[in-house]
Amino acid sequence: MKYFDELTMIEFDDYMKKTTPPVVVVPIGAVEEHGAHLPLGTDTFQPLYVIEKLAERMDILVAPPVYYGLCNSTRNFPGTISIRFETLYNLVLDILKELVRHGAKRIVVLSGHAGRPHMAALKEAAQDVVRAEPELKLMVLSDYDIVYELCGQEFEPDDGHAGDIETSRIMAIRPELVKGSGERSKPEFPPFRILAHPEKYFPSGIMGDPSAANAQKGIKLNDYVVDQLERLLSDF
Amino acid sequence: MKYFDELTMIEFDDYMKKTTPPVVVVPIGAVEEHGAHLPLGTDTFQPLYVIEKLAERMDILVAPPVYYGLCNSTRNFPGTISIRFETLYNLVLDILKELVRHGAKRIVVLSGHAGRPHMAALKEAAQDVVRAEPELKLMVLSDYDIVYELCGQEFEPDDGHAGDIETSRIMAIRPELVKGSGERSKPEFPPFRILAHPEKYFPSGIMGDPSAANAQKGIKLNDYVVDQLERLLSDF
Amino acid sequence: MKYFDELTMIEFDDYMKKTTPPVVVVPIGAVEEHGAHLPLGTDTFQPLYVIEKLAERMDILVAPPVYYGLCNSTRNFPGTISIRFETLYNLVLDILKELVRHGAKRIVVLSGHAGRPHMAALKEAAQDVVRAEPELKLMVLSDYDIVYELCGQEFEPDDGHAGDIETSRIMAIRPELVKGSGERSKPEFPPFRILAHPEKYFPSGIMGDPSAANAQKGIKLNDYVVDQLERLLSDF
Amino acid sequence: MKYFDELTMIEFDDYMKKTTPPVVVVPIGAVEEHGAHLPLGTDTFQPLYVIEKLAERMDILVAPPVYYGLCNSTRNFPGTISIRFETLYNLVLDILKELVRHGAKRIVVLSGHAGRPHMAALKEAAQDVVRAEPELKLMVLSDYDIVYELCGQEFEPDDGHAGDIETSRIMAIRPELVKGSGERSKPEFPPFRILAHPEKYFPSGIMGDPSAANAQKGIKLNDYVVDQLERLLSDF
Amino acid sequence: MKYFDELTMIEFDDYMKKTTPPVVVVPIGAVEEHGAHLPLGTDTFQPLYVIEKLAERMDILVAPPVYYGLCNSTRNFPGTISIRFETLYNLVLDILKELVRHGAKRIVVLSGHAGRPHMAALKEAAQDVVRAEPELKLMVLSDYDIVYELCGQEFEPDDGHAGDIETSRIMAIRPELVKGSGERSKPEFPPFRILAHPEKYFPSGIMGDPSAANAQKGIKLNDYVVDQLERLLSDF
Amino acid sequence: MKYFDELTMIEFDDYMKKTTPPVVVVPIGAVEEHGAHLPLGTDTFQPLYVIEKLAERMDILVAPPVYYGLCNSTRNFPGTISIRFETLYNLVLDILKELVRHGAKRIVVLSGHAGRPHMAALKEAAQDVVRAEPELKLMVLSDYDIVYELCGQEFEPDDGHAGDIETSRIMAIRPELVKGSGERSKPEFPPFRILAHPEKYFPSGIMGDPSAANAQKGIKLNDYVVDQLERLLSDF
Repeated sequence: MKYFDELTMIEFDDYMKKTTPPVVVVPIGAVEEHGAHLPLGTDTFQPLYVIEKLAERMDILVAPPVYYGLCNSTRNFPGTISIRFETLYNLVLDILKELVRHGAKRIVVLSGHAGRPHMAALKEAAQDVVRAEPELKLMVLSDYDIVYELCGQEFEPDDGHAGDIETSRIMAIRPELVKGSGERSKPEFPPFRILAHPEKYFPSGIMGDPSAANAQKGIKLNDYVVDQLERLLSDF
Repeated sequence: MKYFDELTMIEFDDYMKKTTPPVVVVPIGAVEEHGAHLPLGTDTFQPLYVIEKLAERMDILVAPPVYYGLCNSTRNFPGTISIRFETLYNLVLDILKELVRHGAKRIVVLSGHAGRPHMAALKEAAQDVVRAEPELKLMVLSDYDIVYELCGQEFEPDDGHAGDIETSRIMAIRPELVKGSGERSKPEFPPFRILAHPEKYFPSGIMGDPSAANAQKGIKLNDYVVDQLERLLSDF
Repeated sequence: MKYFDELTMIEFDDYMKKTTPPVVVVPIGAVEEHGAHLPLGTDTFQPLYVIEKLAERMDILVAPPVYYGLCNSTRNFPGTISIRFETLYNLVLDILKELVRHGAKRIVVLSGHAGRPHMAALKEAAQDVVRAEPELKLMVLSDYDIVYELCGQEFEPDDGHAGDIETSRIMAIRPELVKGSGERSKPEFPPFRILAHPEKYFPSGIMGDPSAANAQKGIKLNDYVVDQLERLLSDF
Repeated sequence: MKYFDELTMIEFDDYMKKTTPPVVVVPIGAVEEHGAHLPLGTDTFQPLYVIEKLAERMDILVAPPVYYGLCNSTRNFPGTISIRFETLYNLVLDILKELVRHGAKRIVVLSGHAGRPHMAALKEAAQDVVRAEPELKLMVLSDYDIVYELCGQEFEPDDGHAGDIETSRIMAIRPELVKGSGERSKPEFPPFRILAHPEKYFPSGIMGDPSAANAQKGIKLNDYVVDQLERLLSDF
Repeated sequence: MKYFDELTMIEFDDYMKKTTPPVVVVPIGAVEEHGAHLPLGTDTFQPLYVIEKLAERMDILVAPPVYYGLCNSTRNFPGTISIRFETLYNLVLDILKELVRHGAKRIVVLSGHAGRPHMAALKEAAQDVVRAEPELKLMVLSDYDIVYELCGQEFEPDDGHAGDIETSRIMAIRPELVKGSGERSKPEFPPFRILAHPEKYFPSGIMGDPSAANAQKGIKLNDYVVDQLERLLSDF
Repeated sequence: MKYFDELTMIEFDDYMKKTTPPVVVVPIGAVEEHGAHLPLGTDTFQPLYVIEKLAERMDILVAPPVYYGLCNSTRNFPGTISIRFETLYNLVLDILKELVRHGAKRIVVLSGHAGRPHMAALKEAAQDVVRAEPELKLMVLSDYDIVYELCGQEFEPDDGHAGDIETSRIMAIRPELVKGSGERSKPEFPPFRILAHPEKYFPSGIMGDPSAANAQKGIKLNDYVVDQLERLLSDF
């Protein structure tokens, strides 16, 4: 495993010219409120952590992360930085095109934030790149696409933003940044509405039950994500 | 109920100046393959039909439809016309801004096509309009957001594109355009992949079981959508 | 003749693979005030009508209409929905490119609205497509390009928006939507001015003499347009 | 009269603060073939000349010219430089906004080139500026809008590009740049077609009868334009 | 030497087909305050002058100038017209692409204005063109890139905008437009700040010592620029 | 000092509401070859390091870094990822606007990469933000703007990319990533040329003398940058 920005150009070149060039992983974070108890970088810390663990198991090349994402529902809380759809789209488009220019054959874009327009921006960029480069193998997912498979089993079916899962994971990854415990909150948004002020419906910034969280769960969850990613990339 | 383009400017003006101006409904269609048995306009006929029925029950103003949408997974089949994300976004943005300029207070964007990037384009446009106009009540949904609530109950859990539900509905709406019956097909896409050629995974263009479809189911489904829309708009 | 969205993908594919693939016609409408007597969809109803009649005579493929156009001079009247130049340009660009991708060799873009910037948007899109695809035969016109040839003969030389011709045609096409009769109005705009409020110069929204209109004239006019279109497409 | 770029900032400031600030004239040229006999700058020399003459009669402020325009039909001839619609639109938009920022109350955009998409770009920019600044008096025209009024009278009805009028005018303005005399050419374009190669229909690059041209006509024509502009601006 | 817009299309064509086609020079000006003593067109007059002199010595083809540039620090003074980065970028991109389309092999973009974002716009456009056309020889410079080499020698090290050099040059080129003499001003901007009102730091609009200027210096400076340009283009 | 993404929304909110809200620092990196001896992230490691040291001395809020920049001259070497001007511009524009929305009064954008178009993108974004928000105090610089002040004194006057200074600094910051020592290289680029292949002129990817570098120099250099930044921000 390598971090892209720690390689010299020669090391990078050698690496990409191997018989089987590595999978390049592009981590995507977000700066977004996660309740009063979790840090603004919650959606960044999670993918960076699982990628680090994954890299201990497989030969992957980790590109520098994109720290900024698109956050509509939490935009009006303190600290959320939401960039425009087209900004995120163009940034990821440029990065993917450059990776392809340097010979990447398999790329995974892994996002900690799972908001739909955010994911749509990543996927539209990927779609445009792969259409121009049909041989490229390209995967775009949020690690929450993996984690939410567990909802309805060990976790409440609608556990979500800053809830049990997310709190548990950050308790395992960056416990010193968890400030107390959030309260259970299951907001009911008016159906299908596009809202100027969605924050009115969940003033705590929480969608789930962080009070049920603990670090042990978090360790298990993170392991589960790493296992699943390993399996996905092995099949790649 | 009124069709926007059938009103004179005076009738329109009177209508918008009523104590309770009507909800304006913007129908969004798509031109997209729907198997060998359903017409390319399947995603247009459905919202136009339910809106017509809804208008028999409520006082709504129906804007002219947008016939073109964004279709990634079916793009390479014959007949699919897929416009770019930014084109769809800008078109809907312009229409919504113009409706607001003319005094619309409540708007529903109802799309027959439910693809994620397509819906994201509609919602991003709506989000930008509502942020500039926080008093506006704005709803964006696909009639499939409503219909899919029935999956896992009367329909297979993963019934989808050109499947049982969609075929039944078109059998009820435009039976003369249904050409025979499609075969059951439950494609397995490689997980999280962005594909240049998704059509390889479902060469029939079907995701579901159209062979189970019939017009009676379709009538019930369409009624269900109209009922739900009526309820949603009454609460608006 | 076929309506694009009524075909299945198989029917569409067969149709486009014929020895002489059909001319594809893309109807372009507008949502625009047309006096107190004509409906907002006047510029949509006219091309849709003549295309329907044309299709009874020739083998053409009718794409779904674009209902929204660009209307500067009437923008401030109730009901006019005017989209931006670049929005209209990009929408038509995307549609034309998709038709070419599916094998279209001859395309006609027929607009009911004849405003200059509106037509310029259609033509610039067409120009860019044809430059990339020089073998493509492409025609862009308003049915008013045809009708206005009759001005100075049977009609007043400067009959125009919502005037004698247009009123007569709608009386023939959708008589139930004509609400009384408009008064003669020949606005004098200050020459070459670009106006924030052009409506001040024709508060009735009329440029011509609708009081002279009748359905017989309209029938003749519509027939004339169909005849001319038939001739144009036969030479195509 | 003043040339904008010959003033110091103090002189400019004084000038704009006068009780009646001057009309600002923005000349727009083009670089475009005009047959084998006229220079590529034909559409620039004409407005610059009439503006110079006009300035001898009235107090106007002449902004630096825009030398580049949009030329579809002549694009493939040697020497034509055609910029994109959006480039021309944005350039003129920026210039107009800056003039307004500096206090301009009345602006005339005068173009030597009269092609429709070219004029549409100028007018759309002007429209957007005037909509944001409704008090602004803004005029956009080609000097050929004025000259062509004479067609059908002293000149052939369809005299046009590099024809009698244009050749006569350049013979009066820059006789040393006229190289012999072009031959009469009245191209017939296939009606309403958007062409990748319009030059096939007029290989001489001429639409009109330059062989009928002479400098005396040109002087009269130029005077006529100046007279008409003077009248237009006096009414402004 | 030739001026592009004075050639007929035939003359242009012959010229470009010569064994060694000429270097095409694209002059870029600006409309920008230059103190109370220099005209707004100062940055246009200088490159146009040296190009004219250069053309007496070498066979070059002079394209019509771009009169408008990007001026951040002087934007708020009377008379400065500053176009957006993307407008300037796109305009120069279009012009360069068109010159390449007509067979230009060597192009020099010479700007009178030397502001960094202005030069960056020119260079980014040039970079994109040369990347698509690697055989093209392309040079982008300000004549102040040449002149400032003399700073610290005959001129004060930080002589700049409307200072000794610039004033001397305009005294040699357009003496009738120089209105008195500006005073020495060496503004100290707060380091690295991006300012909404940079004009506060140099209310005279001067950065340098115009009181030291004279026409003799200006003649020498202009000659120096022409000499250097001749040398640069000979090596091209 | 705080890292933005380590704060909860409550901590962030408290922090921004202090009597004197902190300076927000936005680190900008690049992914760019730096010879065979330095890592691709060289331009990221340097600003992150000095900001960390600065934060030990002052109360600043460090936003998550932007890891990707614009690199024209090194683009064709292995490993350089260069995003488009407009992508970088829009990304920084969005981030700055969001910081302002959350109450930031003083912002420093600190870039490790100092390429001119890269810096121009950052500055144009900052210029547009500050124009809309004139009270905002905004600084944009590269830490190389500070370091290069030492050139001509302790370092060769034209030491640059991957040279003595940069190598020394990385030897002090991330010694384990320095792979041997690069050779002295002082490339001569053809003056003012915009090149498709600038790498031909410095195949080693070095502009300076890395063989003179050592960690002691690096420590001194880094301290010098931190001192200067401290001084700059104290005056802010």
